[in-house]
Amino acid sequence: MDKERKKRPIGTKGVRAGLAERDLRHIWHPYTQMKDCESMPPIPLAKARGIKLFTPDGSYYYDTISSWWCNVHGHCHPHIVRAIRQQARRLDHVLFAGFTHEPAVKLAERLTAIAPKGLSKVFFSDNGSTAVEVALKLSVQFWQMKGKPDKRCFLGLDRGYHGDTFGAMSVSGVDLYNKRFEPMFFRAFKAPAPYCYRCASGMGGVGCSLNCLAEMEKILKRYHEKIAAIILEPMFLGAGGMIVYPALYLKKTAELAKKYKVHLILDEVASGFGRTGKMFASEHAGVSPDIMCVSKGLTSGYLPLAATLVKEELFRAFYGDFDKFKTFYHGHTYTANPIACAAANASLDVFDMEGSLDNVGLINRSLKSFLSDMSGLGIVGDTRCIGVVGALELVKDKSTKCSFGPKRRIGQEIYRAGLLRNLLLRPLGDIVYFFLPLSARQRELNEIFEKASEVIYEINSCS
Amino acid sequence: MDKERKKRPIGTKGVRAGLAERDLRHIWHPYTQMKDCESMPPIPLAKARGIKLFTPDGSYYYDTISSWWCNVHGHCHPHIVRAIRQQARRLDHVLFAGFTHEPAVKLAERLTAIAPKGLSKVFFSDNGSTAVEVALKLSVQFWQMKGKPDKRCFLGLDRGYHGDTFGAMSVSGVDLYNKRFEPMFFRAFKAPAPYCYRCASGMGGVGCSLNCLAEMEKILKRYHEKIAAIILEPMFLGAGGMIVYPALYLKKTAELAKKYKVHLILDEVASGFGRTGKMFASEHAGVSPDIMCVSKGLTSGYLPLAATLVKEELFRAFYGDFDKFKTFYHGHTYTANPIACAAANASLDVFDMEGSLDNVGLINRSLKSFLSDMSGLGIVGDTRCIGVVGALELVKDKSTKCSFGPKRRIGQEIYRAGLLRNLLLRPLGDIVYFFLPLSARQRELNEIFEKASEVIYEINSCS
Repeated sequence: MDKERKKRPIGTKGVRAGLAERDLRHIWHPYTQMKDCESMPPIPLAKARGIKLFTPDGSYYYDTISSWWCNVHGHCHPHIVRAIRQQARRLDHVLFAGFTHEPAVKLAERLTAIAPKGLSKVFFSDNGSTAVEVALKLSVQFWQMKGKPDKRCFLGLDRGYHGDTFGAMSVSGVDLYNKRFEPMFFRAFKAPAPYCYRCASGMGGVGCSLNCLAEMEKILKRYHEKIAAIILEPMFLGAGGMIVYPALYLKKTAELAKKYKVHLILDEVASGFGRTGKMFASEHAGVSPDIMCVSKGLTSGYLPLAATLVKEELFRAFYGDFDKFKTFYHGHTYTANPIACAAANASLDVFDMEGSLDNVGLINRSLKSFLSDMSGLGIVGDTRCIGVVGALELVKDKSTKCSFGPKRRIGQEIYRAGLLRNLLLRPLGDIVYFFLPLSARQRELNEIFEKASEVIYEINSCS
Repeated sequence: MDKERKKRPIGTKGVRAGLAERDLRHIWHPYTQMKDCESMPPIPLAKARGIKLFTPDGSYYYDTISSWWCNVHGHCHPHIVRAIRQQARRLDHVLFAGFTHEPAVKLAERLTAIAPKGLSKVFFSDNGSTAVEVALKLSVQFWQMKGKPDKRCFLGLDRGYHGDTFGAMSVSGVDLYNKRFEPMFFRAFKAPAPYCYRCASGMGGVGCSLNCLAEMEKILKRYHEKIAAIILEPMFLGAGGMIVYPALYLKKTAELAKKYKVHLILDEVASGFGRTGKMFASEHAGVSPDIMCVSKGLTSGYLPLAATLVKEELFRAFYGDFDKFKTFYHGHTYTANPIACAAANASLDVFDMEGSLDNVGLINRSLKSFLSDMSGLGIVGDTRCIGVVGALELVKDKSTKCSFGPKRRIGQEIYRAGLLRNLLLRPLGDIVYFFLPLSARQRELNEIFEKASEVIYEINSCS
């Protein structure tokens, strides 16, 4: 590597040093060991356009992870910016009980029109965690009102991730984030992840008989009278390691939910809005959940907004005279914020205007070709890909699949090496991944993957 | 009452009917028994200016509750709208790990400068519930890292309200909202509310010896080794019934927290940003909490944003080498959204530009005078007031303080009667309240209270 570049501390050039220092005086960043900022201060950004994030001195980074998986059509898209600007001066915000407005109604109409069949009602909130909390509470209250108050446990997956609030953490399975809070969780069973690369029965996707699903069925068989719902990220587990799994697993899970009379909650917070090549990932398996959670890409990554979509049957169970106490007492101040809804409507416009879903094919081909090029390297244990999402799992020993482990911090090395090449790569532990905006163009992809290859080769040669 | 007006179903005139019908096909409103919408469909809004919400046909409602307690400077204030518009086309959003931006840094600097002494670090999130969840998790992890893993219970108040996610619900005490989910909560003790009107020891604020605090101390004495923190809304309990309580109670609670070595978390989500006449309500008691949660008024009610402010000592406990596993693993995609931060900075500008805090005195005088006028009526059991927040507790029998109860739905009657007079009043059960924007002008207040008097007189005469 260029030694000169390696020496320069990242994000400390010119005016950037000033902002980074000010930042560290008062800000506690999410998912960040703040001591790491001593050697890697936060990088100030002044502007963003398309897939590029610009520092105040005009240098840029490719946003290869769509700013935590939310940006869909590129940054500061003129159509979405215009919608935000227009809405802001018309109707900023109003409480969403007793009142309504065009941006929310239009968005609900469009969401229910494109969502899997049967999801007819929309409950808005602010982020993925709250969309999930709403789903969990709806399911529990539904069963209570049906005379089954014991159905208040959930069934999630090892390595499943659904957010950071207590309800969302209870049904998640990423120990690094949540383990220390476990004594405070409500009961949730965890089925093994459909993690083909580390398949317990050694199938690895080849001749797979979905043994991992048998474990799920065991739990359902024994505990279905205590379980309100299965909660699942469709087609790939995001924070758990970008673990792409077969559509058949999703299909069979939906069948199990039906068989054992538990709700199926699909968490499309990361997978929704085209990331897998379909508008919603559940389409790959032709599955309609009872409840679906969306956020992140809903506003194309511009403003916080989330929605929990539910089937009519579920909604009807809550419908009744006030004194029957069936009301769903949940709400957030900014529910259906008009400016965020306007951004979301504009994002759906762009899907039509630019044929964004069609562009996924192009991105997917580049991504697959890159992953295939890398797969022969010694440190690349596994590659996984769906739509615009692709991952490399780095291993210390390819034959034993032994991990580098957290102390080696190989992800951190990749992150640093990426930044030196204008790439924002932010591995999840040992998993290097891409989570591209749907608007990425061929020449951008070429540059991104060329530079990413350099990064992976460099780390491979040092390991 | 004008019979003609009473007959016209609310929100069904002209174009408004269309939108309301469309709304009811697909939207599930928060905190709403959707069957109620059969007789009271949601009212479509097209525009908002200052304290007024406008329907598409140009009629308006006075937003006397600041759209669920969030609007501070009136709707669509040109300075805030401009800030949103400018930021949207510059930097829409970027992940807030590894990167930073001027709007967030500036906001953190300003928040820590105006916050109670010692709160030096800011952790951003999206809404009040998440700000509270962050506070709870920080407190628990702190004690764990100090070798006290048993300190993972909390102490809240009966009638305290901190949000609708599972962690926030666990520490809240409004049974109507949460009771059915209680078997899923982690352990939280509840001390009696400082509810002077219904004081258990019959003091009612007169010659008060804070007996309610003695109950809190009993719990602390017995369980302090299991309690991580006390969580409290300073100066008034919002959703619990706009229960204003003495500053001394807050001061003494802070002393108890210190004495029994538990954190003090102040939930300023509703009370922050001038509502009580001080920037933060804790100033009334000269109290500095260990952790403070803000949201709602942070952006003047324009966009979702929240922050959890913490003391340096707490932050330091999480600071260390990565492999010591002290990192706080919490984050939301839209953490420190630049557009929302820009709105928040603009809102703080307006405090300076318009002397908003000074206007609270004027509003408070009008509010008090109105409450005093009403207090003689047969149905008005109690009146309570602080800053721009004022409430009337309606009772069936003034001498026995007997409530109307939920079946009578007197709040719903007030709501309907208010709408017919261009007032958005949205009582909490039997509590009619005002939660005014700081920008309200004298002539607006005169009209609001004149019409509100009509409403209360009318209900009084029918009861």
